[in-house]
Amino acid sequence: MRQSKLFTKTKKEVPTDEVSKNAELLIRGGFIYKEMAGVYSYLPLGLRVIKKIENIIREEMNAIDGQEITMTALQERETWEPTNQWSDEQVDVWFKTKLKNETELGLAVTHEAPITKIMKSFIQSYRDLPKFVYQFQTKFRNEIRAKSGIMRTREFVMKDLYSFCRDEKEHNEFYEKSKIAYQNIFKRTGIGHITYLTFASGGMFSKFSHEFQTITSTGEDTIYVDGSKGIAVNKEVYNDEVIESLGLSKENLVENRAVEVGNIFTLGTRFSDALELKYQTETGEFKSVFMGSYGIGPGRLMGTVVEALADDKGIIWPLSIAPFTVHLLVLGDEDSVRIEADKVYEKLLKADVEVLFDDRKEISAGEKFADADLLGMPYRVVVSTRSIKDGGVEVKKRNEPARPHDGLGAGGEKGKVISVEELLKLLKP
Amino acid sequence: MRQSKLFTKTKKEVPTDEVSKNAELLIRGGFIYKEMAGVYSYLPLGLRVIKKIENIIREEMNAIDGQEITMTALQERETWEPTNQWSDEQVDVWFKTKLKNETELGLAVTHEAPITKIMKSFIQSYRDLPKFVYQFQTKFRNEIRAKSGIMRTREFVMKDLYSFCRDEKEHNEFYEKSKIAYQNIFKRTGIGHITYLTFASGGMFSKFSHEFQTITSTGEDTIYVDGSKGIAVNKEVYNDEVIESLGLSKENLVENRAVEVGNIFTLGTRFSDALELKYQTETGEFKSVFMGSYGIGPGRLMGTVVEALADDKGIIWPLSIAPFTVHLLVLGDEDSVRIEADKVYEKLLKADVEVLFDDRKEISAGEKFADADLLGMPYRVVVSTRSIKDGGVEVKKRNEPARPHDGLGAGGEKGKVISVEELLKLLKP
Repeated sequence: MRQSKLFTKTKKEVPTDEVSKNAELLIRGGFIYKEMAGVYSYLPLGLRVIKKIENIIREEMNAIDGQEITMTALQERETWEPTNQWSDEQVDVWFKTKLKNETELGLAVTHEAPITKIMKSFIQSYRDLPKFVYQFQTKFRNEIRAKSGIMRTREFVMKDLYSFCRDEKEHNEFYEKSKIAYQNIFKRTGIGHITYLTFASGGMFSKFSHEFQTITSTGEDTIYVDGSKGIAVNKEVYNDEVIESLGLSKENLVENRAVEVGNIFTLGTRFSDALELKYQTETGEFKSVFMGSYGIGPGRLMGTVVEALADDKGIIWPLSIAPFTVHLLVLGDEDSVRIEADKVYEKLLKADVEVLFDDRKEISAGEKFADADLLGMPYRVVVSTRSIKDGGVEVKKRNEPARPHDGLGAGGEKGKVISVEELLKLLKP
Repeated sequence: MRQSKLFTKTKKEVPTDEVSKNAELLIRGGFIYKEMAGVYSYLPLGLRVIKKIENIIREEMNAIDGQEITMTALQERETWEPTNQWSDEQVDVWFKTKLKNETELGLAVTHEAPITKIMKSFIQSYRDLPKFVYQFQTKFRNEIRAKSGIMRTREFVMKDLYSFCRDEKEHNEFYEKSKIAYQNIFKRTGIGHITYLTFASGGMFSKFSHEFQTITSTGEDTIYVDGSKGIAVNKEVYNDEVIESLGLSKENLVENRAVEVGNIFTLGTRFSDALELKYQTETGEFKSVFMGSYGIGPGRLMGTVVEALADDKGIIWPLSIAPFTVHLLVLGDEDSVRIEADKVYEKLLKADVEVLFDDRKEISAGEKFADADLLGMPYRVVVSTRSIKDGGVEVKKRNEPARPHDGLGAGGEKGKVISVEELLKLLKP
């Protein structure tokens, strides 16, 4: 895409009430727009990241036999009362609203109860199990404070999967598969090396659960990491009994700040008992379905990537979720340079490389370099009189350590000059 | 996908309060689930249709330089008051809710005002125009009655595009392009031949507008169609003056019931004046941006396809938006037949054909045929002892007229027996 056509622009300032690094960088880069505290629109560059994250999650959910649906935000009292989740005393983040006839509705904070109700239409026999159902759907949560940028918001898309099994044994098999799927997701989105399977409390639904926690200095949670085993314990359940039961020892556990990027819960029969989701066994008895739930917020994952990987110049996107693979910069407004840059752009497009082409005129090299650093595409490719003289384009990876400054202004560390053909080989090996 | 693994099942009954054909067939087929009146979840088969419709719309919007974003449902009073759209007297379909601190919020019924506010951050100069921005996003509308299935709901995804131009002339150029993009969308989704560009009133935003109306006997609107010119007039503006101004004459206009599947509005400067979205011209003056808005509801389009194309046995999906291209049926539970059917399934998958494989056991041929007719995939492919004896698979198009009944039960009209290789040539020419 030509940057001159992109409707967003980078900014020097952010709203004064933004204190989080992710919101600051994402707003300055034009990835998101703040509607109000805890409510953000996703602009073209931001939506491209979200869609790539969603597609990675979707592939991993399909690989473990997930079937995709979408449920609704509007919810009736009748669905939620059997599990004691309707009143504001029981669930304190409801947004409630009303039909014209004064019937009270809620905006779903999660979907355990609604999916259980749906499955009552389709599960009757042991032959109908197991089943795994997921969605990408907007949740609404009436948070008192919302100061963490896109990490904790009042309106956000969540991937939530629900599992329906005959018994605990069948459930446990899927639960273990889901762990691996989740680990694949974090690896593929570029935070696998700093994300730990973490033993945690069960929250609303069960005694214990597993979280996936990504280490960042600004994280809301405290975890104790055993680096050699690749697992961690959340502070909330960090006690001698738990440590011992997990086969860990205190001296190997290191305290870290972290962000929860995913969680998986064993629900058991809490929802199926309350909402009467039963199936008939091979011997003719009726048994409650054994359930689990599995969440990831693509927006929170995106914010975590920004917080964890950014440097002091801006965002650093992993290749798999970058809005574009290449940020192509043309320096100078001379016709000869612009014609050459246009050719490079066309060649990259033809090779199916995703390119953001900074073809803007009357913008200094320094400004273009600074924008490229802020926006964080994995490869910066420069076409200039000098690169042409040297026989190609100047390539620099965003996550490479800076080279000696060459006087081109902020962000202008030198890259390596290679031919366009070599560039294509580098990008499409 | 193997139908034995699909979590949904077809049903004989529908909720007693459903009066619309689209809801009846879609619920019976397991495409959608009714949460409450006017609020539907999309189950795997239904979501596949929606995603295909969305992708066709997305391609056409990108082709006219649309840039995709997503805005938020939660909305503040401050955004809507300048255009007199906040109070329930002014907009009578609001769902309102509250933050913990009692601040009133609304759930967006449309997004003209929010996008205008966003564009204030990015449009300053004539160089920044024109720009075209769109989204697929959930709207909430507090309809008093909701009895039209997925055609008029209280919660639905809409594709809404907004155009930002320097002046009316630049706007008109885009407006004409948008008409063609819309016509492409309706052609590609299989209702082009019964969908008419229709002159209509401007509703909330302007004096006149254009709708795209699809002829169905159950439509909410009345239109007058000039078949030879391919255009129509909505009853609400059907008078001598309008007919003459459009170069039509009464004797060529035929009254029809129709459903509005899309609309395009010239907004002019109503929103940009009220919210002060201005740009500086080449001569240094400040002018209000000239706007338009362009809507299509993928759910309503899906419902319209069902209403307009279904027959008395069930749904007939156009190839482009069918959940699967082929419904493969294995008849009989003998090993030899099932092994052959598995082979056909694998061959189709290998050739990238989308197949729903009815591999369910202990289901009669009649039930399988009836389900295939209800679910409406474009090609029904049967593997049976007889088809194997005749050297292949029995193929029948869902929209072909019925052939003489062969005693296999409801829906069992004969197809043509061809080899799997011929089938692949037919499907992937």
